[in-house]
Amino acid sequence: MRVDVEEKVLSENDKLALGLRERYREHKVFCVNLISSPGSGKTALLERTLEALPKTARVAVLTGDLQTENDARRLAKAGFPVKQITTGGTCHLDASMIIKALADWDLDAIDILFVENVGNLVCPTSYDLGEHAKIVLLSVTEGEDKPLKYPAIFAISELCIINKIDLLPYVPFDLVQAIANARQVHPGMEVVETCCTKVQGLDAWLAWIERRRKQAMQD
Amino acid sequence: MRVDVEEKVLSENDKLALGLRERYREHKVFCVNLISSPGSGKTALLERTLEALPKTARVAVLTGDLQTENDARRLAKAGFPVKQITTGGTCHLDASMIIKALADWDLDAIDILFVENVGNLVCPTSYDLGEHAKIVLLSVTEGEDKPLKYPAIFAISELCIINKIDLLPYVPFDLVQAIANARQVHPGMEVVETCCTKVQGLDAWLAWIERRRKQAMQD
Repeated sequence: MRVDVEEKVLSENDKLALGLRERYREHKVFCVNLISSPGSGKTALLERTLEALPKTARVAVLTGDLQTENDARRLAKAGFPVKQITTGGTCHLDASMIIKALADWDLDAIDILFVENVGNLVCPTSYDLGEHAKIVLLSVTEGEDKPLKYPAIFAISELCIINKIDLLPYVPFDLVQAIANARQVHPGMEVVETCCTKVQGLDAWLAWIERRRKQAMQD
Repeated sequence: MRVDVEEKVLSENDKLALGLRERYREHKVFCVNLISSPGSGKTALLERTLEALPKTARVAVLTGDLQTENDARRLAKAGFPVKQITTGGTCHLDASMIIKALADWDLDAIDILFVENVGNLVCPTSYDLGEHAKIVLLSVTEGEDKPLKYPAIFAISELCIINKIDLLPYVPFDLVQAIANARQVHPGMEVVETCCTKVQGLDAWLAWIERRRKQAMQD
């Protein structure tokens, strides 16, 4: 006789994230969680993304910050539903904040939900938001060593977006080494290079979203 | 009859920081705690600072990171005592880490102790390391809105160093607005503008250290 005993001790956040994941599955919402240092360009990337999408696209954004509604104001210009989550002093978004923010949205009207986390390359790593994929942004001004210094977020993220590549001529950043460092921490990690002020690399990013969304809908 | 009741509930970290502060006073060590996002240039600023100091200067550095000894290797080249604090997953330095790192150093041989915190604009704000002053770095690639979005660290820091000013021609950064934002959060905040690749503003930073150190020694 064999007895299987599976006992998972889930944290409160993990339980809430599990609930979110089930709701996303039920309502066919594809959700990604964008994480980076402050000022790496998460909001700019989302601005360019929303501008590039057809007006009929069913996308929405939750954007997190300690303080200010600046990002929500910037992102709302594209005309899609946007909500700011102001965390006060909290250094990351958690699943309960997402649940609260989604309370008055109809998930059946959303195909893609972008979550822009608080600018922090450490703490958001540990908080499951029920997303299909975490995505880490690294701007070329931050140095190619960051994947080695902050390995957890690079290990757990599906995609690494290397942003601000227009600044490469002006900063000491070894792009080949940066990608090698990311793949040392996360073998085979997908990488997309972007610039959001002059708009480069957006096609590759949009293609990644569409491909990954289709895959998520089949899972 | 008046009864004064003063009951302070100090956290464990605050107690340890108080002990550090007393040791710094006793041994006449001036300590600053450098805080910024990942990649704002804390290590580069310290490299230029150590290079600019006379070889007889009695300075030492503790440098924090989640992983790697890269920064300690970079900083040790100047010939002064340097020690890496590797936090594992922890998103900030705390007083116990500082105490452990200082255990085999003679504080009587140190006039200035630079502590380079983990790259994180949020969590290190809350951890007293017994330092005389917290210093926040903001690089011009991060955007002038950061003092408003991360007000706590700008409120608590004595000095704001705006770094990478050589990149101003290439990025959308309003320097005047950035300083106004810092001073909105922290009225009268001192600001020094620096570039650490082509070396600008170092004199103002070194003058600040010397002035603030003398003041600390008189307190």
